[in-house]
Amino acid sequence: MVPQPQSPALAGGRGTSLLIRGARIVTMNDAFDVIDGDLLVRDGRIAAVGQAAASERVDRIIEARGAFLVPGFIQTHIHLCQTLFRGYADDLALLDWLKSRIWPMEAAHTPASLAAAARQAASELLLSGTTTVLTMETVHDTDAVFEALEPTGLRAVVGKCMMDADAAVPARLLETTQHSLDESVAIARRWHGRANGRLRAAFAPRFAVSCSRDLLEAVAALSLEHDLVVHTHASENRDEIALIRERTGRSNIDYLAHTGLTSPRLCLAHCVWVDEHEQSVMADHDVKVLHCPGSNLKLGSGLAPVVEMRAKGISVSLGADGAACNNHLDMFEEMRLAAVLQSVRKGPGALTARDALWMATREGARAIGLEHDLGSIEVGKRADFLLVDRDRLQFLATHDPYSTLVYSARGTDVRTTVVDGAVLVDEYRPTGWDPAELAVAARREAAALAARAGF
Amino acid sequence: MVPQPQSPALAGGRGTSLLIRGARIVTMNDAFDVIDGDLLVRDGRIAAVGQAAASERVDRIIEARGAFLVPGFIQTHIHLCQTLFRGYADDLALLDWLKSRIWPMEAAHTPASLAAAARQAASELLLSGTTTVLTMETVHDTDAVFEALEPTGLRAVVGKCMMDADAAVPARLLETTQHSLDESVAIARRWHGRANGRLRAAFAPRFAVSCSRDLLEAVAALSLEHDLVVHTHASENRDEIALIRERTGRSNIDYLAHTGLTSPRLCLAHCVWVDEHEQSVMADHDVKVLHCPGSNLKLGSGLAPVVEMRAKGISVSLGADGAACNNHLDMFEEMRLAAVLQSVRKGPGALTARDALWMATREGARAIGLEHDLGSIEVGKRADFLLVDRDRLQFLATHDPYSTLVYSARGTDVRTTVVDGAVLVDEYRPTGWDPAELAVAARREAAALAARAGF
Repeated sequence: MVPQPQSPALAGGRGTSLLIRGARIVTMNDAFDVIDGDLLVRDGRIAAVGQAAASERVDRIIEARGAFLVPGFIQTHIHLCQTLFRGYADDLALLDWLKSRIWPMEAAHTPASLAAAARQAASELLLSGTTTVLTMETVHDTDAVFEALEPTGLRAVVGKCMMDADAAVPARLLETTQHSLDESVAIARRWHGRANGRLRAAFAPRFAVSCSRDLLEAVAALSLEHDLVVHTHASENRDEIALIRERTGRSNIDYLAHTGLTSPRLCLAHCVWVDEHEQSVMADHDVKVLHCPGSNLKLGSGLAPVVEMRAKGISVSLGADGAACNNHLDMFEEMRLAAVLQSVRKGPGALTARDALWMATREGARAIGLEHDLGSIEVGKRADFLLVDRDRLQFLATHDPYSTLVYSARGTDVRTTVVDGAVLVDEYRPTGWDPAELAVAARREAAALAARAGF
Repeated sequence: MVPQPQSPALAGGRGTSLLIRGARIVTMNDAFDVIDGDLLVRDGRIAAVGQAAASERVDRIIEARGAFLVPGFIQTHIHLCQTLFRGYADDLALLDWLKSRIWPMEAAHTPASLAAAARQAASELLLSGTTTVLTMETVHDTDAVFEALEPTGLRAVVGKCMMDADAAVPARLLETTQHSLDESVAIARRWHGRANGRLRAAFAPRFAVSCSRDLLEAVAALSLEHDLVVHTHASENRDEIALIRERTGRSNIDYLAHTGLTSPRLCLAHCVWVDEHEQSVMADHDVKVLHCPGSNLKLGSGLAPVVEMRAKGISVSLGADGAACNNHLDMFEEMRLAAVLQSVRKGPGALTARDALWMATREGARAIGLEHDLGSIEVGKRADFLLVDRDRLQFLATHDPYSTLVYSARGTDVRTTVVDGAVLVDEYRPTGWDPAELAVAARREAAALAARAGF
């Protein structure tokens, strides 16, 4: 069941070379260049964009046949561990959804079920063109997630969830402040930078509702000391912000600022309910917003002020959130929803298809502090990209690649996915694992997990 | 390029029999029965649901292997002719979108381009489980659409678009009132009931903005006389309703009521902006609402009051609208959006997954006056249905078929589509046509059409 690396693919492309010939390259560089040409990859990085020398000797050539070549999608808010909860938590708003379904199921996770969830999620993500995730896992057994992810080839910034102060949390998910901090640092020591830098660690306090002020202040200090991203939720739901105000007397973002957390390393999922003043605080501190339009709809959270936040210079990137509140993990859907939900809020064109693709690539790289390495097709960057055939049934003779990719393409249109130069999806099929076998394992683990949770 | 019927499939299943063995049948009958069993089809109709007699002799057996068997989706608002406009009309609100892009392209349509559009749309629709459409075509050459649809096997209620009063409309789309009426009646005489009842005609005045009061009153009378559906747009956009108020001194629905159009045969696309009083008028006359959530988002029209309209007993069914404002034609996406947009309006659970599937099947049948024949898996009804494998990667061990079908399934998960007993999609492939060839033809026609329109 475990994804089996195919040599040399999963060596991270090191020591190997790959030529993609005849693509329409949607570079997402600063000039938005779209180039009809070739892409040369050496040692897992982009070595040339344009015309490859005829004499170039490479280990493998892929004929793109005119396909769009796009930077790999970077989903900045996801919970891989919730992949097995899909279908068990419908028709609930955030706080009920957490208390009655998500936390009991997280508490019932074992290393085996966490591994199954991570593998299932990685399979779905890679097959639909997502090459990097920022994921918040559960409180315990985060090593099992890293171990499961390593052979999949997915790039991941993984946070062990931190919760030390919430009476509604099941006992198994509640830690002491010190244990939560120690464990998070220990995980970062074990895993940050592993797999040629493909696996990274983050601090992941769940949200202000479930964390003590001491914990948040300590995370602020540790994030600076270790230069690690802080991944948390904020202002997703009106009941949540009412709770924070009741407890602290402050708005959610003001409270986070008072703990010292607001910095360029702070990644805030959702931010559906943030006022002008809070947006200014976020902009002043270069805080990153992780927008999850699909999840915000299904949980009934609201429509986030994305246009306004972007106008203030705030980085807004995209994520599917967990499978229990989406239910897909497909970046094409999030791009499309991001654009059309702002259309209904602010008028058509308020957030264009090109903006949505920018959020899915460049802003994702910026959020996790890897803009030098990821997010565009430029020489020297990591070779993370996907191919989308241009002759798919629902694509017409459109001249605009952004419109086609955002409004007409779907996750199932991804022909090829490459991470670190390794071809992980090839002609619509995974190279290293059998998704059907994976699904059987995931279903078995999901059923056992639901039984343990008492569902 | 033309879809080639494969005998006997496209004879409408007449004289043949088909057994689907071992399905999980989501009947969508009044009791919402879900039955693990077989489905027997004879002469294009459902002959038995449950356990087939072992001695039953049939022309073909399909092993469902536990797949969900679902009534074919009925999309009640679509414009097949706009399938070639996809990607040519982004980032515009309704009235600009019509005037600057859609009407010039409709005016540039030829019989050949209309046929290509209809074939491309039918292919996409059948491949994603839609078996019936209520479609508004353009003003001219509607015979070409019927002719193109006949061999595809898709069930369709087709309306020639009527426009006799709008200065903004290109000359080629503007008719005299009498010509518009005569042509509509002539088309109904030629086509209504053809292909064993699979093709039907409707009156299709575009919307009150583009139609004279004389035309609307005459359509009301003709609809009663011929017992034909009236398919129009209403209250999609705030500028549109302001125009109607300015011209007539009335709200849009009140104005339609004054023309005599409000009846159980009146199908109103969108109804995003209808107040309490208008909703009561619609409920009193059993007017049907055709909800298009994807289109309403992309055109920035708004979020329709679906929960409120359903609470008043109004039939609300679903459609993708045209490909230029969606851009997909995939009922799974419309079901999901219908549910989650009401979640964000009225709270999670306000419109459940089961409600959404009901709208996609039963309410569709009710809208077009074919509830006795379509919309559920019951003995005696037409054999229009689809199969969705339950072992797809993104489906887990969920017990709830509605959640799985609405929140987790996608158009690309459809394994089999049957209309009138004819197997039109079989193991994910069309039986009668090559979608890639169709797409090549559609792209060629789309490029020529755009050139004719001056784009």
